[in-house]
Amino acid sequence: MMKNGKAKIKMPEKKIKVEIEPIGRRIFLKQPVNGLDAIVNSGIGIKSVCGGKGICGKCRIIILDDGEFPPSEQEKKILTSDEIKRGVRLACQQTFHKDLSIYIPSSSLSEEQKLQVEGEELDIEISPVCKKYFLGLEEATLKDTKSDFTRINECLRKEYSVDARTIDFKVLTQMPTVIRDNKWKITATLRENSSGNEIIFIEGGNRTKSSYGIAVDLGTTKIAIFLVDLLKGKTVDRIGVTNPQIRFGEDVMSRLGYAMQDEDNLKRAQSLVVQSINEAVDGLCKKNRLSSNEILEMTVVGNTAMHHLFLGLPVKQLALSPFLPLTSEAIHLKAREIGVAISPGGYVYMLPPIAGFVGSDHLAMILATRLYEQEGNCMGIDIGTNTEIALKSRKGIVSVSTASGPAFEGAHIKYGMRAAPGAIERVVIDPETCVPVIQTIDDREPVGICGSGILDSIAELLKAGIIDRWGKFKPEKKCLYRDRHGNYQYILTPEFYMQKRNNERIQKDGVNGIGETRQKTEYGRYNDRCDDKYVSINQRDIVEIQLAKSAIRTGIEVLLEDAGIGFEKIDRIIIAGAFGSYIDPKNVINIGMFPRVSLRKITQVGNAAGVGARMVLISKKERELAEKIACDIRYLELTVYPSFTEHFATSTIFPEPWELI
Amino acid sequence: MMKNGKAKIKMPEKKIKVEIEPIGRRIFLKQPVNGLDAIVNSGIGIKSVCGGKGICGKCRIIILDDGEFPPSEQEKKILTSDEIKRGVRLACQQTFHKDLSIYIPSSSLSEEQKLQVEGEELDIEISPVCKKYFLGLEEATLKDTKSDFTRINECLRKEYSVDARTIDFKVLTQMPTVIRDNKWKITATLRENSSGNEIIFIEGGNRTKSSYGIAVDLGTTKIAIFLVDLLKGKTVDRIGVTNPQIRFGEDVMSRLGYAMQDEDNLKRAQSLVVQSINEAVDGLCKKNRLSSNEILEMTVVGNTAMHHLFLGLPVKQLALSPFLPLTSEAIHLKAREIGVAISPGGYVYMLPPIAGFVGSDHLAMILATRLYEQEGNCMGIDIGTNTEIALKSRKGIVSVSTASGPAFEGAHIKYGMRAAPGAIERVVIDPETCVPVIQTIDDREPVGICGSGILDSIAELLKAGIIDRWGKFKPEKKCLYRDRHGNYQYILTPEFYMQKRNNERIQKDGVNGIGETRQKTEYGRYNDRCDDKYVSINQRDIVEIQLAKSAIRTGIEVLLEDAGIGFEKIDRIIIAGAFGSYIDPKNVINIGMFPRVSLRKITQVGNAAGVGARMVLISKKERELAEKIACDIRYLELTVYPSFTEHFATSTIFPEPWELI
Repeated sequence: MMKNGKAKIKMPEKKIKVEIEPIGRRIFLKQPVNGLDAIVNSGIGIKSVCGGKGICGKCRIIILDDGEFPPSEQEKKILTSDEIKRGVRLACQQTFHKDLSIYIPSSSLSEEQKLQVEGEELDIEISPVCKKYFLGLEEATLKDTKSDFTRINECLRKEYSVDARTIDFKVLTQMPTVIRDNKWKITATLRENSSGNEIIFIEGGNRTKSSYGIAVDLGTTKIAIFLVDLLKGKTVDRIGVTNPQIRFGEDVMSRLGYAMQDEDNLKRAQSLVVQSINEAVDGLCKKNRLSSNEILEMTVVGNTAMHHLFLGLPVKQLALSPFLPLTSEAIHLKAREIGVAISPGGYVYMLPPIAGFVGSDHLAMILATRLYEQEGNCMGIDIGTNTEIALKSRKGIVSVSTASGPAFEGAHIKYGMRAAPGAIERVVIDPETCVPVIQTIDDREPVGICGSGILDSIAELLKAGIIDRWGKFKPEKKCLYRDRHGNYQYILTPEFYMQKRNNERIQKDGVNGIGETRQKTEYGRYNDRCDDKYVSINQRDIVEIQLAKSAIRTGIEVLLEDAGIGFEKIDRIIIAGAFGSYIDPKNVINIGMFPRVSLRKITQVGNAAGVGARMVLISKKERELAEKIACDIRYLELTVYPSFTEHFATSTIFPEPWELI
Repeated sequence: MMKNGKAKIKMPEKKIKVEIEPIGRRIFLKQPVNGLDAIVNSGIGIKSVCGGKGICGKCRIIILDDGEFPPSEQEKKILTSDEIKRGVRLACQQTFHKDLSIYIPSSSLSEEQKLQVEGEELDIEISPVCKKYFLGLEEATLKDTKSDFTRINECLRKEYSVDARTIDFKVLTQMPTVIRDNKWKITATLRENSSGNEIIFIEGGNRTKSSYGIAVDLGTTKIAIFLVDLLKGKTVDRIGVTNPQIRFGEDVMSRLGYAMQDEDNLKRAQSLVVQSINEAVDGLCKKNRLSSNEILEMTVVGNTAMHHLFLGLPVKQLALSPFLPLTSEAIHLKAREIGVAISPGGYVYMLPPIAGFVGSDHLAMILATRLYEQEGNCMGIDIGTNTEIALKSRKGIVSVSTASGPAFEGAHIKYGMRAAPGAIERVVIDPETCVPVIQTIDDREPVGICGSGILDSIAELLKAGIIDRWGKFKPEKKCLYRDRHGNYQYILTPEFYMQKRNNERIQKDGVNGIGETRQKTEYGRYNDRCDDKYVSINQRDIVEIQLAKSAIRTGIEVLLEDAGIGFEKIDRIIIAGAFGSYIDPKNVINIGMFPRVSLRKITQVGNAAGVGARMVLISKKERELAEKIACDIRYLELTVYPSFTEHFATSTIFPEPWELI
């Protein structure tokens, strides 16, 4: 139906859509563009040594659509015929002239980008805290009556020069049976604890080739769960599930409010999320022919509220001022203590929270983006209900949390919705006709508008002069229609414009009748049926976005003031998070969430927190590094910062028309 | 009734009974004896510098019976009038001329003895692993948003220069409420773990003056539980309860047999013993106005089977050859992991088992008796169903376990019973008349015979020539009576002899009748009613004791052979355990359990294992020391020792009459 609608109405120029895998990014080009330029301009770090001459062969991509992208002479020189057959091309030698999907292999991504891509091999030293050892034990006799544990330890020392200081209590109870059922040939998993090695798992036979862990990015709304091969450091599989605590409130504060009411609520919230993770882990394991018993370790990152609720920690002190976390240390906890069903002796490792509203997901983001070692001044930002911003300057890393609200997640917006099929995710408004062109997820009929769509809408309304600097609709604009309460709204659904034009044609052509007359009023400025039928933006929606962007801008301004630098001194802005990877960075500037800055400085990195969770799962060094960074991060409480309210007030205004890009 | 019986029959000379508290020892004197001599001869280490001149005042005792022990002139000089009023005397200045009870204060006991006495202050450095710190925290504000844990840690560092590395997970969940309910004034308990300090308890206000732990001596039959003040290192209270696992078998092997049948049995055995300990701890706490939450640590010693069953560890490998323990390391375990109800963050500490049949109770005994640092050659022995013997020689400490069986605990003996009221505990047989004089516990009518009584009986039967060197009853002895199966037995019940004499008198006096005639046959040598009426010793009982003493003697002989020394080179023999403290050491030699040795070399120390459990509870150093000793002990498996069977065969024979003392 939607497609028909699109076909019938003449839309402004069609853009070229490029789907970039495995990052899951979509970019739009106004005209055919060189492939390398298109990728680089979108902020994705692709390797290129020769600068586009087609000599170095570093910018290999795979074009996933058949034909229409024949290899150049230069490509034929550099690539094998096999590669060419598989669709491999050099980005610099191709022109993206039509809609296409490309895949950027890990080897073509710059080091930095690699870490940020979900599902890609993480290029860090593989050194998990858990390691397996195969042991051929000598059978006990009356002349050799060493205890089982002593026997294992002697074998470990002799064969591998390692030592187990302790053995998990549950493993101890299973050990004798495993040893004897497997004729004294076993595989012991040692975990490096601060007090020495602990045997956390005993399996029969040689199982050293199989070593798995789970990384969890525990979001308020969504939980991303990754099954990771600890030997290869690779993500084997993943699954996303909805956080079941959502029934107790969609946002963090209402979730905390529920959990602090009484202990049973807290227990319920805790067991629900653990159960949900257990089911997901079990599903991932079954799919990959593993038993959840074989999962040696789980790492979890999340905001501080999710961190506390996962552990079942009381949250009253977190929900009320001064919003304290109970601990800001990393946690090593036997998974069984909180009901997490992995290997009976396995641990859950949780990165330390930084503050009440700066969670371990923020730390994971800083780790994954390597923010701490960026040259110059660098800002990392994860936009969400709470937007955490870190500024790395000469003064070190300072982090703030701003209560940006759920507007960017589609909440508190009349037609707002999550990024699900049918959500309007891109909006362009023709400045001449004031008619919008929209893009919905999966090209479905529009049913609502998600964060990136809202952001685009506001920026485009501003650009087209439909709203002023204070966010008010300009009543003289003919493209505005009133809802049944008499409030202005801007309609996004193309069907509306199509029917309006049809209607106008009918009127013009003199085709008349009762039905048509009613149709005419239907699209009049006092139409009371638009409300429910068409996706629109109203004045209140704009205010919500103003408040949200203002909160973020305030955080940025306070950080800059604290560091004693201007925004122009920022060398790089990293936007992390699911939402952040779908927004158009240009419009972030156009609504004034960021001061004006070269788009080249902006990088969108996707779910960096999930990447960080996996990094600390596969690497002991990364874990140590993250804990060190946590100590170095200075948390700045915005609300008590002297110039906070001043910044907030000035941040609500949108940029001047000449500032728009 | 018994007392009447005693009154009517003329008994051999009455002995003087001396009850010695708090050791709980009873000694018998044939004639009035100097107090100091009586105590020293009984093997109790009492201080005496002047050698009985009444000058040094070291041998202070308290006479618990009023009057009849007036102070000497010398005592009036040394003691204060207050002391004299309280019954304090000098042992060397008093004569024990009648039955009395005395109390030996800790200050009068020799250093060595002090450690061995239940309930006495242990004279070791008080350095428990758990320590309390009072903290006046600064209240959190929006300008000071450190996490609760960080806040505590900073205060610990500032005020006490200590550092907490981690916090127990359960304590973390309780912490915020305790902190806020107590206006930021709290007491934190830190436990010294191998990886650093852990906060295991948080209380409101200043609770540093109250610090308690529990020590458990977990026996197969009896569990001794001690409430210990960790600040003073003193035992505050104690309780003894029956091991509820007894329903699954009285001895270790049948207990293991039950537990290895299936997992449910093991779980049941584990939870029963834990539940029983929990109830006892709760009772002790209530009695002393404590909450079991305040118990910071529990130490447990016991044989390896009890150790495994307490933890719920599988026991198949322990019950079957080659009888392996699962671990021979010390165990630090969160009490809650096995359901032990002390402080939620508290630990159970278990000393390491040495071997399958040499448990941590043996190690505790070695620690408490200071066996490892004794000069010369020293033997430590704990007589029970399994008798563990340690020999400390120039070659270090070597331990063996002998399957002495439950005869000394009264099992497998026809009239055998535990040391409960009515049990015959002392037996002397008049060599002339062959009539026994017995002493029962609590002077009740005899209902059975306990270990020390059995031991006495056999020794006295041998001495009176009623049995020969091979343990056989001599049929010519007129004091033997046949049971209804025609087997010889020696009757211990005085009533029997009383009625027999009455009967003889009736016969002699010519008083006759049907009733009397029947009475006459009743005590005839083929009487079939004696069986059930009178406590007796039969041939099978003697064989049981022969096997038991032979097993122990074999262990001793093998240890001596292994060390390359003769028994005469042994400088000291320490007999530990409840049974060991009630036996007459003379008779131990007379039945040949030990080779002949000066009685002065023998010390009976009571429940040394329980003392050891308390030592490792109140002192970190003792804990380290015990673990070191555990590594140094060499376990010798008797059954594979070349000369084992040879020794066993020769050990069954009793000593020659001229060897008896």
